[in-house]
Amino acid sequence: MSDKNLKAILYQQGDIRLEDSDIPEPGMGQVQICVQHVGICGSDIRYWQEGAIGDNVLKMPCTLGHECSGIVSKVGRSVASLKVGDRVAVEPIISCKLCKNCKSGRYNLCSEIKFSGFPPTHGSLARYIVHSAPSCYKLPDHVSTEEGALLEPLSVGVHACRRAGVKLGSKVLICGAGPLGLLTMLTAKACGAAKVCITDLDERRLNMAKQLGVDFALKVNYKEPKEIAELVEQYFGERAEITIECSGAPSCARTAIYATRSGGCVALVGVGPSDITLPILDAAVREIDIRGVMGYANCYSTALEMVASGQVDVKPIITHIFGLEETMKAFRSAITGEGIKIIIKCSRI
Amino acid sequence: MSDKNLKAILYQQGDIRLEDSDIPEPGMGQVQICVQHVGICGSDIRYWQEGAIGDNVLKMPCTLGHECSGIVSKVGRSVASLKVGDRVAVEPIISCKLCKNCKSGRYNLCSEIKFSGFPPTHGSLARYIVHSAPSCYKLPDHVSTEEGALLEPLSVGVHACRRAGVKLGSKVLICGAGPLGLLTMLTAKACGAAKVCITDLDERRLNMAKQLGVDFALKVNYKEPKEIAELVEQYFGERAEITIECSGAPSCARTAIYATRSGGCVALVGVGPSDITLPILDAAVREIDIRGVMGYANCYSTALEMVASGQVDVKPIITHIFGLEETMKAFRSAITGEGIKIIIKCSRI
Amino acid sequence: MSDKNLKAILYQQGDIRLEDSDIPEPGMGQVQICVQHVGICGSDIRYWQEGAIGDNVLKMPCTLGHECSGIVSKVGRSVASLKVGDRVAVEPIISCKLCKNCKSGRYNLCSEIKFSGFPPTHGSLARYIVHSAPSCYKLPDHVSTEEGALLEPLSVGVHACRRAGVKLGSKVLICGAGPLGLLTMLTAKACGAAKVCITDLDERRLNMAKQLGVDFALKVNYKEPKEIAELVEQYFGERAEITIECSGAPSCARTAIYATRSGGCVALVGVGPSDITLPILDAAVREIDIRGVMGYANCYSTALEMVASGQVDVKPIITHIFGLEETMKAFRSAITGEGIKIIIKCSRI
Amino acid sequence: MSDKNLKAILYQQGDIRLEDSDIPEPGMGQVQICVQHVGICGSDIRYWQEGAIGDNVLKMPCTLGHECSGIVSKVGRSVASLKVGDRVAVEPIISCKLCKNCKSGRYNLCSEIKFSGFPPTHGSLARYIVHSAPSCYKLPDHVSTEEGALLEPLSVGVHACRRAGVKLGSKVLICGAGPLGLLTMLTAKACGAAKVCITDLDERRLNMAKQLGVDFALKVNYKEPKEIAELVEQYFGERAEITIECSGAPSCARTAIYATRSGGCVALVGVGPSDITLPILDAAVREIDIRGVMGYANCYSTALEMVASGQVDVKPIITHIFGLEETMKAFRSAITGEGIKIIIKCSRI
Repeated sequence: MSDKNLKAILYQQGDIRLEDSDIPEPGMGQVQICVQHVGICGSDIRYWQEGAIGDNVLKMPCTLGHECSGIVSKVGRSVASLKVGDRVAVEPIISCKLCKNCKSGRYNLCSEIKFSGFPPTHGSLARYIVHSAPSCYKLPDHVSTEEGALLEPLSVGVHACRRAGVKLGSKVLICGAGPLGLLTMLTAKACGAAKVCITDLDERRLNMAKQLGVDFALKVNYKEPKEIAELVEQYFGERAEITIECSGAPSCARTAIYATRSGGCVALVGVGPSDITLPILDAAVREIDIRGVMGYANCYSTALEMVASGQVDVKPIITHIFGLEETMKAFRSAITGEGIKIIIKCSRI
Repeated sequence: MSDKNLKAILYQQGDIRLEDSDIPEPGMGQVQICVQHVGICGSDIRYWQEGAIGDNVLKMPCTLGHECSGIVSKVGRSVASLKVGDRVAVEPIISCKLCKNCKSGRYNLCSEIKFSGFPPTHGSLARYIVHSAPSCYKLPDHVSTEEGALLEPLSVGVHACRRAGVKLGSKVLICGAGPLGLLTMLTAKACGAAKVCITDLDERRLNMAKQLGVDFALKVNYKEPKEIAELVEQYFGERAEITIECSGAPSCARTAIYATRSGGCVALVGVGPSDITLPILDAAVREIDIRGVMGYANCYSTALEMVASGQVDVKPIITHIFGLEETMKAFRSAITGEGIKIIIKCSRI
Repeated sequence: MSDKNLKAILYQQGDIRLEDSDIPEPGMGQVQICVQHVGICGSDIRYWQEGAIGDNVLKMPCTLGHECSGIVSKVGRSVASLKVGDRVAVEPIISCKLCKNCKSGRYNLCSEIKFSGFPPTHGSLARYIVHSAPSCYKLPDHVSTEEGALLEPLSVGVHACRRAGVKLGSKVLICGAGPLGLLTMLTAKACGAAKVCITDLDERRLNMAKQLGVDFALKVNYKEPKEIAELVEQYFGERAEITIECSGAPSCARTAIYATRSGGCVALVGVGPSDITLPILDAAVREIDIRGVMGYANCYSTALEMVASGQVDVKPIITHIFGLEETMKAFRSAITGEGIKIIIKCSRI
Repeated sequence: MSDKNLKAILYQQGDIRLEDSDIPEPGMGQVQICVQHVGICGSDIRYWQEGAIGDNVLKMPCTLGHECSGIVSKVGRSVASLKVGDRVAVEPIISCKLCKNCKSGRYNLCSEIKFSGFPPTHGSLARYIVHSAPSCYKLPDHVSTEEGALLEPLSVGVHACRRAGVKLGSKVLICGAGPLGLLTMLTAKACGAAKVCITDLDERRLNMAKQLGVDFALKVNYKEPKEIAELVEQYFGERAEITIECSGAPSCARTAIYATRSGGCVALVGVGPSDITLPILDAAVREIDIRGVMGYANCYSTALEMVASGQVDVKPIITHIFGLEETMKAFRSAITGEGIKIIIKCSRI
């Protein structure tokens, strides 16, 4: 196989293929990027395993991968902010900049949003990609491209903490200690949360949470939502001000409501089933706001500042690194649940 | 029957009795009020019919009534703000003023809240009551005590519109055209909403909504939530920015999510069953905030201003007035659904 | 003089010339507009009289005019939202869409902002202009192009009321009853302000304010700031919750602070001298927020809704209409202070 | 001199006297406190030196001191939250709980506010005081009463950062490295500020700031506001998002505006002269909010959490501790500027 621009393409459910292609040329306002590191996300796995997430069904072959960093290898016309050799993190959202949501600062809700790596928009599991220059964030010398790739899920954590209103002194419950839960936990602590409690079924994930500095790691197997909520209340000495649901499990969404204090907030990050039965009357009469979290907007710079300033150290969550040629192996490894964050190194060297 | 201080007391489910009692004396900081008008609320009816609302079960006989106006008939010690003869509207919330929620301005979420007229706290269906003076709002001469009684449900409308973020130019959907829905509609218009659409099953209520100036009254019988949402979208030319659910019907809560635009808000005012199955993934990925509405805080003055300045005219929703002696008749009338707002005149003359 | 595309160009201080030029062709994403009505703003007058506003000095000849409506006469490539014959209001802000402020929804603070009609960016006092299509708002049939031109200053009023937090029940003081003050007053009422008081030196302007429905019009000549603040407090029965300064007079900025209640807000719309001496300790210890107002962002749609729905009637403030050929006469008329809003009809018929 | 309840009383400008008095008995809802540590604040010094702060003139002898911790020595009726022996920090604000500001959560703006230790309300430089129980915050065992006394100025820092909107990733300039500036700096870092720059004239204070972890300490003597603003911009790579003025110097308020980015915020904590000349047009057209900071509301619990959890270490700013008998010496020491925070130990042992 020739290898000008090797790519990992999802053809259909369960069918990822490595294929070569031409190296794309940057258009006006774009840069060409020699991709370095790409994180594998739960949504990549879900597209691979199920061929769809909810209503978004894979219809044509699509290159996966949206947690991406790289090195600028060519610069298109009208690009002044970047030059060849710059190391960058790539924000995958492509928004119209003209709709009501874009103009009011919520470009993650753009009516014509595209998301590189979410079908039908090609992603970054490739040797080379092109991307809009203003969506490429230059990394300082001391921030690695591994960290650069993690700015994507870290931005979700930043957006989740903003949406949830985490602030100095907050007592925060996080349901789910996967990569998103862990990065959200680090972000909540960086926002000044007084105490963070994280829950999971998996001992290893909880140990990682402890290693990263969580205040309380609670193993929740076989427990009812109300029971878990009581344990959280016992730990905090009161209910959580804020609960951020990162697991996608319906029972955790129920726990989130029971565990949260009157006037508090439940933020939903984890993607679960379409319909959930919730104790909505309890949430309503106690004025607990329920707020969804869709990607992020205006979070990449903050995520980069957090890593660059040393406020958070995200490196420990990277447990495996595979080469682009080993993509299938990487995906199979991801579903064993052995690792936390699996990264694919896309450039040849 | 003697009649020093006649009261309508709920003894148990289905059992309201008129009884006489002593006239209470105002304590420090309190006033004695010769009750004028008291509105009957859906919750009064529900306590009467079911003996409970959710976990709040009637355990001891309790005087009902929380939508109250009256005339100050005696003034307790340390009361400087009111004098005998002042006509007042009575805010029924009694909060501790010391808990975290009270101190931060959300006294409707007070951890020790009492609500006059909600068991076990006695209410205002009586000739005379005593109440905390700072919770009595003096009515200007041109505001009637009928209107004064309506400040209570109007305050719910004010709080709902604040929680939902109704503002200049908003397109607002209101589900349910009962008294709360209608008063919320009037409030939304007063907040500058560009267009308000209201839904109901009942033709008469929709006609009242039209009479009060709603932009679009939509009869929803036999329609699916998604179908109703589409009709609303057709009418507005886009989805609603804000939906305020005032009916308590689970299907309306579903409609609310489908009918609301990305980045919008669904406020829940109507009290339905404990658990509801909602299209929560759709709400989450479109970042529609779901916010409960529990009573009100800091809304009485605003409600009074609205009525006093003529911004809203609430009188048309009063369809029936009964005497205190006719309380049972009034309650029976309420459940026929013939009227909108039924008022009880509590003073003898 | 030929008249393909007559324009009113400011060459230097005091020197406006009418000149002909070619009709511009719309580029990609642009439309060509046959200009209908253009309002004259205080800033146009100031550029004409002083050749500068603060640091912004006229260096090259520049077509004035930024309050503009017209009829689409040609459509550039990639424009789907508009067609020839559409009547539109033109939002004059041209922002980069990529800087931090643009991406977070505050495009009025864009680091590379251009403003059509503010030197050095050409404006709309011409027969024909081209403009970015997404910044052209289609007028419904029943909204006139005179009203369309007024959406620009009305958007300032909308932005001012948003920045100041005017809401249901607010008691609002507005300093200055020029066009901006009057439109801000109309907007404040539409936002549900319970009472609005407006001040000015000019009897005619105050009469216009009364005609438009202000609650209290206060003539302020020869009075000290504290004295005016006391009159306002007497009228409201308490201090104003919000004061919006629209005059640019330093003494009014002082009045604004004295007249505003603890925890309230002073918004600064009027453009005065660079430095002002303010009772800043009084503002600080009473936590009165002082917020500037720079143009508007995301306000045009709302302004259009307000006019289209009949919430406000802006037409009465138009006191004079001149033809484009009479531009100099129009400017000279503006400085007499006889009119309120002077409009120039730019198309030949 | 007998010593039942020794007190440091300010009789008039420059005249503090130590006097004995009876030990006060706690009323209903109050506790008697054996005072442990009381910090000396700039306002104490100012009352001592000038006999007044602005319009607040000392008219009768008054016990100073408002940064107070102690041990509960007696408990009044209806106090359930505290018992004898509890170590507490004392929040000095006494608010009416009934006015509009109290009810909406801004009790620091209470229309009838009293502030223990601000004339004419007696303070805590005494062996024993009584205070409202709900305003006494129980210290956990590992938090010292020295730290307890510092919760008061730390609460100012918390309130300042909240008012200013400091959040994850903020670049914050703080003017003035006195105790308030330093505690605000620590708070800003705890809120997740990416970088904090602090300015002062005094080398020792700047060194303390460095010891406490500030990112950049800038000595500002002989520099113009615009010059300082440029140095700050060079350091941050852009202007500050937020500037918190803690010095009270008018030139710093000017610097604050020049140094802050468009759409940012200037918070005013330092108490300067009544009137200041500010570049208000620059602030207005760049929409920089100017927000005063008056004490704090709902901040004590957060300040306590910050200290108890180890998020901040406030102890290093305590440079001197004097006995209550040495009060005059302590005040004289304070004005030499040798120390940062001077504490008076009030109990005998």
